[in-house]
Amino acid sequence: MEAESIKQVAEGIRSFLKDNFDRYVRILSDLVAIPSVSAKGEHMDECARLVADLLAERGFKVKIARAGGHPAVLGELESGEKAILIYNHYDVQPPEPLEAWKHDPFKLTAEDGRLFGRGTADNKGNIVARLAAIDALKHVLGEVPLAVKFLVEGEEEIGSPTLPKLVEENREVLKADGGIWETGYVGRRGELRIYLGFKGMLYVELTVKGPSRDIHSGYAPIVPNPIWRLARLACTLKDPEGRVLIPGFYEGLTGLGYDVEALLKELPFDEEALKEELGLEEFVGGLTGLEALRQLHLMPSLNISGIYGGYTGRGGKTVIPSEAGMKIDIRLVPDQDPDEVLEALRAYLAEKGFGDVKLTVHSKYPAGFTKPDEEVVRASVRAAELVYGIKPALVPLSAGSGPMYLFTGVLGVPMTGAGVGYYGSRVHAPDENIREADFLKGMEHVALTLLMFSRGRGAKH
Amino acid sequence: MEAESIKQVAEGIRSFLKDNFDRYVRILSDLVAIPSVSAKGEHMDECARLVADLLAERGFKVKIARAGGHPAVLGELESGEKAILIYNHYDVQPPEPLEAWKHDPFKLTAEDGRLFGRGTADNKGNIVARLAAIDALKHVLGEVPLAVKFLVEGEEEIGSPTLPKLVEENREVLKADGGIWETGYVGRRGELRIYLGFKGMLYVELTVKGPSRDIHSGYAPIVPNPIWRLARLACTLKDPEGRVLIPGFYEGLTGLGYDVEALLKELPFDEEALKEELGLEEFVGGLTGLEALRQLHLMPSLNISGIYGGYTGRGGKTVIPSEAGMKIDIRLVPDQDPDEVLEALRAYLAEKGFGDVKLTVHSKYPAGFTKPDEEVVRASVRAAELVYGIKPALVPLSAGSGPMYLFTGVLGVPMTGAGVGYYGSRVHAPDENIREADFLKGMEHVALTLLMFSRGRGAKH
Repeated sequence: MEAESIKQVAEGIRSFLKDNFDRYVRILSDLVAIPSVSAKGEHMDECARLVADLLAERGFKVKIARAGGHPAVLGELESGEKAILIYNHYDVQPPEPLEAWKHDPFKLTAEDGRLFGRGTADNKGNIVARLAAIDALKHVLGEVPLAVKFLVEGEEEIGSPTLPKLVEENREVLKADGGIWETGYVGRRGELRIYLGFKGMLYVELTVKGPSRDIHSGYAPIVPNPIWRLARLACTLKDPEGRVLIPGFYEGLTGLGYDVEALLKELPFDEEALKEELGLEEFVGGLTGLEALRQLHLMPSLNISGIYGGYTGRGGKTVIPSEAGMKIDIRLVPDQDPDEVLEALRAYLAEKGFGDVKLTVHSKYPAGFTKPDEEVVRASVRAAELVYGIKPALVPLSAGSGPMYLFTGVLGVPMTGAGVGYYGSRVHAPDENIREADFLKGMEHVALTLLMFSRGRGAKH
Repeated sequence: MEAESIKQVAEGIRSFLKDNFDRYVRILSDLVAIPSVSAKGEHMDECARLVADLLAERGFKVKIARAGGHPAVLGELESGEKAILIYNHYDVQPPEPLEAWKHDPFKLTAEDGRLFGRGTADNKGNIVARLAAIDALKHVLGEVPLAVKFLVEGEEEIGSPTLPKLVEENREVLKADGGIWETGYVGRRGELRIYLGFKGMLYVELTVKGPSRDIHSGYAPIVPNPIWRLARLACTLKDPEGRVLIPGFYEGLTGLGYDVEALLKELPFDEEALKEELGLEEFVGGLTGLEALRQLHLMPSLNISGIYGGYTGRGGKTVIPSEAGMKIDIRLVPDQDPDEVLEALRAYLAEKGFGDVKLTVHSKYPAGFTKPDEEVVRASVRAAELVYGIKPALVPLSAGSGPMYLFTGVLGVPMTGAGVGYYGSRVHAPDENIREADFLKGMEHVALTLLMFSRGRGAKH
């Protein structure tokens, strides 16, 4: 396809989406109106059915798939020679605290160029943008120029517990040459942030037992308190500078196999603003600049997400608790096998005298990533330049975790990002919102990514 | 008074109390029916008024005193040459969890020789026993043989916050030659446990600040997590063997000024049963026997009653919390000044790099104790031998804390113990109860203690 032709198609797409914008706001409104909070497990079938209907209306062969948890929607549209996989989720975070919302979280509300509601950014707005992209391509080209596979799951906000099984059971349907990740955000400079990878996760809970029941703390001189052991255990996991002390934790990390530094240097990172926002004098170990980014995006971490034991209400109560525990999230980078890290942790605990501590695994999966020279990434980068008028920021490995390995690793599908949210979307928080302008651009970006990917415009060259 | 005469009076007292037992059960029933839960602050005036009425009916000059908190009842009955101070409290612990009670906690219920209800043992049953003792003495002797001062407070279960002020403001009324502490319990061998002292208390909460808001734990490589600092702080407070590391903590402890070992050796202490009940292989640092009792009853302790930070709900959530904290109860022995210990703790925290940690004091008072050769103690010991038929167990210093110093220290009144509860009274727990036989014995014991104290029978000889 010639440049002239692309420009014409892009204009056609843009004008279709502008003309039909209100229609997509209505679809988003319908989706937001269903409180599909996966943590509560209510309205899940209802929301999955709506997504299935929206796909079926567009000619997709649709299947509601279950792998033991909330239903997922699989949609398949045959066309062209290439195939793209689109990953989304229809479930949302709980809206609480309700009193902190300006508007009803489950009633889409337009105000000052923004659309408020739970799921607008994460992730229902993206579902709609992708449906709109399909409509636009059909309208302008008369057909969708490549096969499209949709996977819209209902458990992302609770850690995608049955997604591995679901992917395994639907390998054939999900086969594709490239994929689009569920989300992406527009940064402060107007750049689209494309996540090319996510760290893995090993989330464990460690529980230390004390006396068989809570007992009056007058017994403290003779009855062991599990909180002391828990504190000592915590102190053996990391040194005061923040280095993880589990043997082998940092060994054998070879990186992502390409020049990641180049991407890191281009990442917007206003460290002073972040420190000020968080009220910090300095980062862990005095990290700054590129070294801070390396730690954030390339190195594994071990964090205590929660610690508990004894009386934690108001005022004072004196007790030796029968139990104390902590929740630990270990974020894994490529080359780290979650099972090996788990075994290293167990062995280290035993070596340090904590072999009796109960260890419960809440989550366990490896990192996954795509290299920036993959065709689908290049297509989305070019589309982003056209739509946003500025180079997108490529994040080689998010500081956060996500099950991208299921796509990049298990299915072998390179993934790129796109999304209608922005830095102020308040994802997971009250007043979640998107900007109407981003919503429109997000639709355009997906349409152009699909177009370029189908025509090989994203190919390495 | 001759031995013969004492025996006759004791028999008269016993037969009066047996004949009128139902009456005292009814009075207890009236008191239990008022849910005077100080933590909730409801029905406090109502209960104080009932106590005041019960005293006024018996000829006491009554005053409802307030020092900023729940009302206290002061009662004064002039008679004889000596004066005794009786300390009780009409407030009770919350009844929750309600579903764990067999009967309505606020409806006194007799079953299998026991009386169930919140406050039966702690402390309304003791109020009634002491009123009954007054009635019995009047009935048998025609008059109460000594002046009696009642102090019945309404804040014991919330740490007696305004009791120091109340005692200070009523010094004159509360003057006495000896006093009876609010409670005591019958042990498994049938012996009355008399508490001659209570450790003091320094209860502080330490709060460590992290980022100004909770933040996604993907930032763990660069954003400091206050839970790590809290764990390190805990590790600097005590060594792994349980020894407190605050400089000077164990210095200058001279003991109680008499042969405490002799009392400790007589204390029933079934350590194997305690270990088995609590599921412990051994006590802190392998302590056993007399050394364990020394630590329990003579040495100060530092305990973490609660620790908190981050997500502590079910499953996993990943967060760096903006705050983490712990509640620490330090039990003080005689010779330890709470203010000095507090300053030593502050200085130690600063020295160890925790000078910025927020320290909130929830409670702060010194230890208080009475020597066993005080006249009032000897009177109650002899009364106990007569009533229970076995030597009472004298606890030189309870492993727990209590504001006894206000009486023994501030007012200079030696205190002895008495109580209608027993080892199975489930104080502070569901199904609080007393045995009817203990209720009767408790009345007798107070009557005989007053009698012997008034006649000098408890005097050193």
